Amino acid sequence: MAKIAILGYGTVGSGVAEVIDTNRSLIEKRIKDTLEVKYILDLREFPGDPNEDKVVHDVNVILEDPEISIICETMGGNEPAYTFSKKALQAGKSVCTSNKELVANHGAELIALAEKNKCNYLFEASVGGGIPIIRPMNSALTAERVVEISGILNGTTNYILTKMEREGARFEDALKEAQDKGYAERNPEADVEGYDACRKIAILSSLMSGKTVDFKQIYTEGITAVTPADFSYAAKLNMTIKLLAMAKEKEDGYLAAVAPYMITKENPLAGVNDVFNAVFVKGNTLGDSMYYGRGAGKLPTASAVVGDVVECARNFGEHLPCLWEEENVSLKDFSSAKGRFFVRVNKVDEAKANELFGSVEKIYLENYPEEFGFMSGEMTEAEFEQKKAQLSGFVSRIRLKD
Amino acid sequence: MAKIAILGYGTVGSGVAEVIDTNRSLIEKRIKDTLEVKYILDLREFPGDPNEDKVVHDVNVILEDPEISIICETMGGNEPAYTFSKKALQAGKSVCTSNKELVANHGAELIALAEKNKCNYLFEASVGGGIPIIRPMNSALTAERVVEISGILNGTTNYILTKMEREGARFEDALKEAQDKGYAERNPEADVEGYDACRKIAILSSLMSGKTVDFKQIYTEGITAVTPADFSYAAKLNMTIKLLAMAKEKEDGYLAAVAPYMITKENPLAGVNDVFNAVFVKGNTLGDSMYYGRGAGKLPTASAVVGDVVECARNFGEHLPCLWEEENVSLKDFSSAKGRFFVRVNKVDEAKANELFGSVEKIYLENYPEEFGFMSGEMTEAEFEQKKAQLSGFVSRIRLKD
Repeated sequence: MAKIAILGYGTVGSGVAEVIDTNRSLIEKRIKDTLEVKYILDLREFPGDPNEDKVVHDVNVILEDPEISIICETMGGNEPAYTFSKKALQAGKSVCTSNKELVANHGAELIALAEKNKCNYLFEASVGGGIPIIRPMNSALTAERVVEISGILNGTTNYILTKMEREGARFEDALKEAQDKGYAERNPEADVEGYDACRKIAILSSLMSGKTVDFKQIYTEGITAVTPADFSYAAKLNMTIKLLAMAKEKEDGYLAAVAPYMITKENPLAGVNDVFNAVFVKGNTLGDSMYYGRGAGKLPTASAVVGDVVECARNFGEHLPCLWEEENVSLKDFSSAKGRFFVRVNKVDEAKANELFGSVEKIYLENYPEEFGFMSGEMTEAEFEQKKAQLSGFVSRIRLKD
Repeated sequence: MAKIAILGYGTVGSGVAEVIDTNRSLIEKRIKDTLEVKYILDLREFPGDPNEDKVVHDVNVILEDPEISIICETMGGNEPAYTFSKKALQAGKSVCTSNKELVANHGAELIALAEKNKCNYLFEASVGGGIPIIRPMNSALTAERVVEISGILNGTTNYILTKMEREGARFEDALKEAQDKGYAERNPEADVEGYDACRKIAILSSLMSGKTVDFKQIYTEGITAVTPADFSYAAKLNMTIKLLAMAKEKEDGYLAAVAPYMITKENPLAGVNDVFNAVFVKGNTLGDSMYYGRGAGKLPTASAVVGDVVECARNFGEHLPCLWEEENVSLKDFSSAKGRFFVRVNKVDEAKANELFGSVEKIYLENYPEEFGFMSGEMTEAEFEQKKAQLSGFVSRIRLKD
């Protein structure tokens, strides 16, 4: 019998118990064993909950129980999750987590610790919720040199941007609706400023490079400055705006960024709406591939955690390969990144814009009579900033996805 | 050192050698071993080819060489691939295949044989080319009860339908262009009649049910009857037409079909164009997910084969779980399947159509003045056929994806 513990009985943790209950017979067939949730660690009590008798308040009860072979860490945050995970792995107990922050901060170290102790540190649920992306990268795309990952990795911001596109809503109003519906937190900073997507692309780009991408080095820009006017221009161009988290292998190193991008409607990411997430992966022989699904939510995320539990149960005493070393990748300076920009400028500066950006097609919208927009040619971020500084009538810019 | 053989040095087989050469250092890092293509089995010689000295004409050279632990079967067709695969597995050599026909015909038997001989029969490349779908189903979506799979599984027909949608082309002309570009074979029957997609959905629905879905029992309808007029109606309805291969778990059994469907532009499959493939998977706790990529082509397909080689090399002497038993699933009779239909009828029969289908909104197109179209309510296939028989002015029908 496989006995497991759940650390943190919040949304995802209670979802783990629910997914196991719902699909128990199928799961047990797949692991060729029975599966029991023996403990739930939480500070709270859960009177009336079907699992109330499993709740413990001392993690050592779990760590010291030799029957427990797998631990689901669904607490979130760095501590005490980090300490608990380390102790579990040191005791040879596999850890399956949805904790993107901890994985982004200490993934390589915890994987190495798992390898040393012949167990596993699995984190399918930490990126893209229910979308299988970690395991495809680790065990399916293994003939590939992955050269680009770009994803819609945050459901809250995608919901807001979809709302803005479809209804012409302002950011503030779309955010409020997302909060009312429970898609956005009361303090929405981690989502709308791109911090959440940044942790996730740090994880994916670490797997891509095999080394550690420090999320603090990733250029990160949120969606708070995106306006209905931007969407009006995008519509005119048969494009839309998405918060993309990207990592690319360039000839001279890796580049990573989180920012709103204008993308054509032909891009498969353009059709990813509402709270859905998608990860686009380009390999050197595979070409383009994409993985799409519910990027968050209780059951989808829990399903990914339980999928990891199945992998651990099928591979007791064996460490599954995951190439992610502790050594840091040095990212290329984002100011050297080349790209094109959609730029909005006040008409007073039209001559100057012509001088700086050359002959570009201009777009004029009836609703915004004081300004115009255009797509720039290719230039580095630094070059763009330098031109922008010379435009007193500069309104805004959004990067164009190549 | 992992030594492998390639059976069949055609498009995919030579791609396998090329992918290994291209990404050798990464692949060897992932398997923690060196990897060598020792033999290539083919009837032909390949003078001037970098691998010409590896070509053998007798499969026994490979089967009897104890150094060979993994065989890539990229011959296609049932025989001699079936006999060779069986002999290889009996000798404890893992087989990685792109051969959908053989997998659809004998998948369960070959998996059982692999399990018995502590090796693997892997077939990621048999469905969706380079798209990881088999491994996600076998080792990621393992907490799920998969209740629906629907996919665009044939690149040739998707190319043709995309062409028809975008350019108003007739089927015959779009097919000819696909043939000229090498996307369709001179004898296109297997693609355009849906037989290829049928084999692939048989494989996926077998993995979904854990038993064998006999492809011969799957209702299969190709795209040869789809016309520019159908696309005109679809455009009017903000929909498009795709050849879908579907399998669903119903309360009273499984249902499977291959047929052209009208789908809304909101459906993520609607944005899958040209030769791209996509597989949509719905799980009972995960909800919707989708896997997208190049469904065919030399290198994408070869990449999937080599990904399987990596799995085998990482798991020598160990059988990876794949729940697919030989016992047949009895599919529900397709005539009992419920759905809605887009119907075109000659105006002479308008009164009769009203009588049979009730108050439905009719669509009239200027270019087709003699007829009208409408979306029916929900009914079984049998009920529809019965109504259709009473319409002397019946023109055509396309199923609507729910």
